Parts: sequence; C-alpha cells; structure tokens
Amino acid sequence: MSDHEVSALLERAAELDQVDPLGAYRNEFVIEDAFVYLDGNSLGRLPKRTIERMRTVVEDEWAHELVLGWDHWLNLGLEIGDRLAPLIGASLGEVVVCDQTSVNLYKVANAGLTHSGRTDIITDRGNFPSDRYVLEAVATAAGGTLIFAPEDPSPQVIESLMTDSVGVVSLSHVGYRSGRMLDAPAITDVAHTGGALMLWDLAHSAGAVPVFLNEWGADLAVGCTYKYLNAGPGAPGFLFVRESLIGVIEQPITGWYAHADQFAMADQFVPKAGIGRFVVGTPSIVSMVGADEGINLTAEVGMASLRRKSLALTDIFIESLDQLAPPDTELVTPRNHDARGSQVTVRHTEAYRISLALRREGVIPDFRAPDLVRFGFTPLYTTFTEAAMAATRLNHIVRTGSYAEFDTQRHGVT
Amino acid sequence: MSDHEVSALLERAAELDQVDPLGAYRNEFVIEDAFVYLDGNSLGRLPKRTIERMRTVVEDEWAHELVLGWDHWLNLGLEIGDRLAPLIGASLGEVVVCDQTSVNLYKVANAGLTHSGRTDIITDRGNFPSDRYVLEAVATAAGGTLIFAPEDPSPQVIESLMTDSVGVVSLSHVGYRSGRMLDAPAITDVAHTGGALMLWDLAHSAGAVPVFLNEWGADLAVGCTYKYLNAGPGAPGFLFVRESLIGVIEQPITGWYAHADQFAMADQFVPKAGIGRFVVGTPSIVSMVGADEGINLTAEVGMASLRRKSLALTDIFIESLDQLAPPDTELVTPRNHDARGSQVTVRHTEAYRISLALRREGVIPDFRAPDLVRFGFTPLYTTFTEAAMAATRLNHIVRTGSYAEFDTQRHGVT
Repeated sequence: MSDHEVSALLERAAELDQVDPLGAYRNEFVIEDAFVYLDGNSLGRLPKRTIERMRTVVEDEWAHELVLGWDHWLNLGLEIGDRLAPLIGASLGEVVVCDQTSVNLYKVANAGLTHSGRTDIITDRGNFPSDRYVLEAVATAAGGTLIFAPEDPSPQVIESLMTDSVGVVSLSHVGYRSGRMLDAPAITDVAHTGGALMLWDLAHSAGAVPVFLNEWGADLAVGCTYKYLNAGPGAPGFLFVRESLIGVIEQPITGWYAHADQFAMADQFVPKAGIGRFVVGTPSIVSMVGADEGINLTAEVGMASLRRKSLALTDIFIESLDQLAPPDTELVTPRNHDARGSQVTVRHTEAYRISLALRREGVIPDFRAPDLVRFGFTPLYTTFTEAAMAATRLNHIVRTGSYAEFDTQRHGVT
Repeated sequence: MSDHEVSALLERAAELDQVDPLGAYRNEFVIEDAFVYLDGNSLGRLPKRTIERMRTVVEDEWAHELVLGWDHWLNLGLEIGDRLAPLIGASLGEVVVCDQTSVNLYKVANAGLTHSGRTDIITDRGNFPSDRYVLEAVATAAGGTLIFAPEDPSPQVIESLMTDSVGVVSLSHVGYRSGRMLDAPAITDVAHTGGALMLWDLAHSAGAVPVFLNEWGADLAVGCTYKYLNAGPGAPGFLFVRESLIGVIEQPITGWYAHADQFAMADQFVPKAGIGRFVVGTPSIVSMVGADEGINLTAEVGMASLRRKSLALTDIFIESLDQLAPPDTELVTPRNHDARGSQVTVRHTEAYRISLALRREGVIPDFRAPDLVRFGFTPLYTTFTEAAMAATRLNHIVRTGSYAEFDTQRHGVT
C-alpha cells in the first residue's frame, strides 16, 4: 500500500471523527498520553469524574464521616446494580455490584447447579481461565463433570452436548480471545429446552455491546466493571439473577451482608429477600465508586449509540486491514456484525513480538498466547483515527519484520 | 463524682498524653473533626499518606500507565502480605491480602475441613455473624455440623467439645462484642491434640494486639485491614496458611490468579506453589493500596509499642469508669491484660440510646444489639484525654438519663 493510500485512510478516519456524535465523550477521560490505547477491554481509561468522586469518598466521607459513612455506603452495591441493570437488559432488583467476577461466578454457578439437582456444566474451551477453572471445581464438587464445547460454540453445538445431567450452561457472551459474540437468545433457549439454567459471563459485553438478559430469558449472569465500564483496576464485579429465581436458589458463601437483618447479628442465617442475598461481605467502597461513575457515564450515552460507534470503529479497522493486507495475518473476529463484540483479534505466529513492537510505536493492544493480538475499541473514547493508525502500524511492523528486534521470551503481565 | 474529681481525671489523662511516645503518630492521620472517635475497631481513620498514595494510583498509575500498571499491581497482595506477616507472627510467604474477610474465611475453612477428612467445625456463639454463617455452610456442605461453644470459650470448653469428627476449630482471637482476647496458644494446642486444624479470625487483633501465629502453631487465619490497620472502608482482607500446609490443602474457588502460570491461560488448573494459590481474581487495587499504607504505618511503630499504649488507654478508661461508677453499667471486657483486646465493652439495658446520646456529645462508640456499647481504642491516634472524656460523658449520660430523648426504634447501620 502506498503512502498515498495510507494518507487517504487516515483522512477518511479523521472525517469520521469530525462527525462522530460521541466524539465529545473523549473529553470525559484523562488522556494525557499519546497512546493509541486499544486495551480498554482489559482496563478501561480513567473518567475525569472518577477522580473527583474518589477524592470525595476518601478525603471527605472516610476522613470526616468515618464509620457514619456506612449510612450511605451500605447499599451502594445494590444502588449501582440498579443503575447497571438497564444497560444489560435486566430489571431493577436483579443486579448487584459486589466481590470479584470469579467469586461471583463461583456463587451463582454453585447456586444454579445445586438448584438444578444435576451435576454437569457445559462451557467452551475458549472461555476465560477463571470461568473454566471455577466451573470445573463447581461441577466436580457436585460429583459431575465440566463438559467442553469447542471455542465460541453455536447453539447447535451446545444442543448436541446437552444431557439430562447438565444443570448449567455457562458461556462468555463475547469471547475474550476471539471477540466473537455468541447467539445468546438461541443458546439460552437450547439450555432451557434441555432443562438447564443459562449463566452468561458479560465481562466483554457490559458497556460494549447491547445485552438483553430478560429478553433472552437468561437465568444468571456475572460481569466485570473495569473493562468497558471504566471502573478502575480490579473494581468489583457484578452478578445478575432473574427475579423469579432470586428467592429460590441459595449461594454457598453465606456472609453477613446477605442477612435479612444484617445488624441484628442473629444466631440464624436468614437470607435477604432480594438480590442482596448474593452479596458476601463488606465491599471495597473506594473501588466501588469507580464502578458507579463508569456505569453512570455509560448510561448517559446509552448502549444503542455505543454499539453504533463500536461497529463503525471495528469496521474501519477491519477494512483497513483488508486494504493493507499485512502478510500471514488472519482476522479471527467475525466480519458479521451480529457475531462481533467490540474487539478485533488477529492471528499471527509472531503475535507476542508484534504486540511488543506495537507498544513501542505507541499502540497498546493485548497479547493472548500463543498467537493472538487483541485490539479493543471503547466507543466512549476510541477515535476512528486511532483505529486507522493501529491498522497502519500493525501492517508496517508485520511487513518490515521490525518485531524481530524483540526477545521471544515472554515476561510481564501479558 | 464531683467536678473536681472529673477535672483531676482529665488532668491525669493530659499528662499521659504529654509523655506518650506514640503521641506524634496522631499527626499521621486526617483529624479535622472534634469527634472522640472510638470506633476504629469498625472503621479506622484515614492516614494522610493514604491520600497521596490513592491519588498516585488513580491519577498517575491508572491514568497514565493504564494496563501496563499491572506490571507492578499484579503481585501487590503478596507483597503487602509479606509486610503484614511480621505484625501477626507469620513468616514471609504465609500471608496474602486479597478478597473480603468472609470470602477468605470460606476459602480456608473449606480447604482445612476437606484436608482434615472430617466434617464438623467448632466455633462460639459470640463469633462474628459472617463467621458463624459461613462456617455453618461449610460444615453442612461437608455433611457435618457447626458445634457452638458459649461466647469467648476457654481452652477447657473447647477441649470438652472435641470429637473425632471435628476437623477445624475456628474462633475470633478477640471477640467483636466483648473485646475479650482468647488464650490462643492453649486453644491451638487443644485443637491439635484433638486432630483438628486451628483457624483464627484476626479481625479485631491485627494491628491491635500482638499475634504470634507461628509460635501458637496456628494452621490458618483470616483478618481485616480496615479496622485497626486503617486501610479504608471495605479494603481487602487477608489470609494466612502455615507454610507446611500451603502446598497441601486446596481451596474451592479456583480463579485464574491462583494459577501457577497465570497468563498462559492454560487448559488445566495448576495452582501456584505458594500462598498465591489462595487468591481468586483481580484485586481492587485502589482499595488495596490503602491496606499497604495502613500496614506500613503500623509496622513503623511496631506491635510492642502499640500494645503498651493500647493497654494504657483501656486501663485509664476502665479506671475512670470504676471511679465514676455510672449506675446499671457492667464492664464486659476483662480487667486482666492477658484477656483484653484493644476495646472496652460495657453493658447497659439502654445501650442503643446511650450510644446515640454519646454521638450527640461527639463521642463515637459502636452499639451491638441488644445491650452493648463498644469503645475501640486505636493506639496510633487515640489520646488518653479522649479515653477519659468518653468515660466522663458516658457517666454523665447514664446518670442524667439524657438518652431518654432518643427513640428506642433502631435505624441506620448500627
């Protein structure tokens, strides 16, 4: 591709930025670096309003209200859950922000499997490690097995694996490796037809793609706030239980926060009537308010607008790659909008060193072993110019082989 | 008691403050209120250094390093655990800061009971609600029972309850209601003689009283950082597993953080060799650094000095109550130093309204249903004058009956 063609590509991207109706939201974030940051699917950027909110919770509330701060902190996880609910197609009272995603998955998977009276769980080989490990432990403890579908399964594949022993089907709605979005309504139906509960992991969906838990008929869900919801490193996760199941299933970690009359500190454990029964202990308030701000910002924009821009961003990135055609590079994420999350993954045998070379060039993607580079697009702050620049730099690095300067020995967190 | 006697009491307290070798540490905290704050056993005050550290982690690290921040955040829980270890008599590599206390209790109680091959757990009626509820769920899931000792049991009481079915004895080292400190070495011995593992809850001990887990021969422990360690509302808890048990027992929530090669994201779950195998998922970093600062501050002073001042504070409070003799008020916390935590609890049938009246007078204690008022003394910032003032105000409120202005109907978080 000629320099002229690259210029044309960047010009087209700049024009899209000019008319981007969400363009102004980039100003809501602290962006003082020159990174083309495409790793918001690992850790989202810092919203400016979160700085003020965290300062307030520490320097005003903790400092001056001290223990009396619990008067308004106590139910924050439930309140934020209600603000998150519309973004994932859930009703008020069905969502709570609490604990870490893996802990939440353990709680609801265990509760669901016990309720089903069955012993097996279906997931897929490509699911996130915590999901596979936690689900395996839950199924094994129930005397059953974790059954693996191939990565990113179709409804038909799940259907073929259903047996009378399967109590829970648990999948990531958008694959963390592939960026593929599954057919959630159809898979949920398949699980139900087989007599199992459907548990969705929304880590790469919440704030990224439209989610309709109630419409799908989903039973259980968990998710993460620090990716597309920009809540901050390690901010609490969330969980969803459909309304008709809340008072019926029982989670294994019966902490005092789940008690119907928490401060009575009674002899008997009597769970709360509502979604609060799935909380365990005192939540990390400073991290929790990051989830609040990130969710509020997302709610202001709304998922329909975010999805529109997300698809436009991934479209221009994919089209750019099509034009540039970096050799030996395979597009992993589907071209079909219906099957695409807010991330584009490319495969190359030198993925690790390419990701290092991209970083040196100011583009921050994510490497996933052994051969994937993930590019995450957060419509709240990613620009079309960034999408195009990432494609041109990837092409340049692959074509020139400049990644060869880096060591093949992996180190650090990615 | 005459005004003159009250003055003499406050003068004596002021003299103790003058010569207090830890007096300067009060300046390490944000104290812009006029509260006599004796609820640091619920939520400790804000260390000034924590403001700077939290600003740095949010406004510099998250904002500018973005996902690359994980290069130094990833093992923070292990690093802080090593800094906490000497404060609780543990060795390096035996402690990790992660998750909430109740989740940690679930993990290690489950791991310990499974390892024991037995089914029952002993705790006491006065243990914290989460402990009782979580331990009951763990024992029940194992097909066993949670056996209750009376509140704050002696070694002899535990001995009398031991059977061949008891796999774990789990008690709070310092009772959250009574402020009584148990005979940890003797109880640990009793558990071991009976073939059970000993699990200590250090929520009211860490940073408050000297703890010698290794000397006691303790097997497992959990604890809280937001009380005497001043880590901030809901900051992560910690857990301890004695070195020889780390590679042997298995916790139930097998998250990716526990994996020997976390970023390989491998098919099989292979736990880390060290204490990191008891971590589950991504920790809340902003809250985590609060634990780091609080623990570092405590370590600077050292537990021996803190214990000396803690006993002097509770001594003057108890002596003041002895002199003032507020009617119908019973001292619950032992006078014996060996059996006293860093809190003094008094019993009065009007405890709830008395605690409200104290708050109006600027003294913040803690009410525990049905008839206890807890006064927590944090030697890092509580003054002798505050201890004496709390006693005189309590006496005044009880003698004048001024609490009668308040409603008996409980509301709010305490």
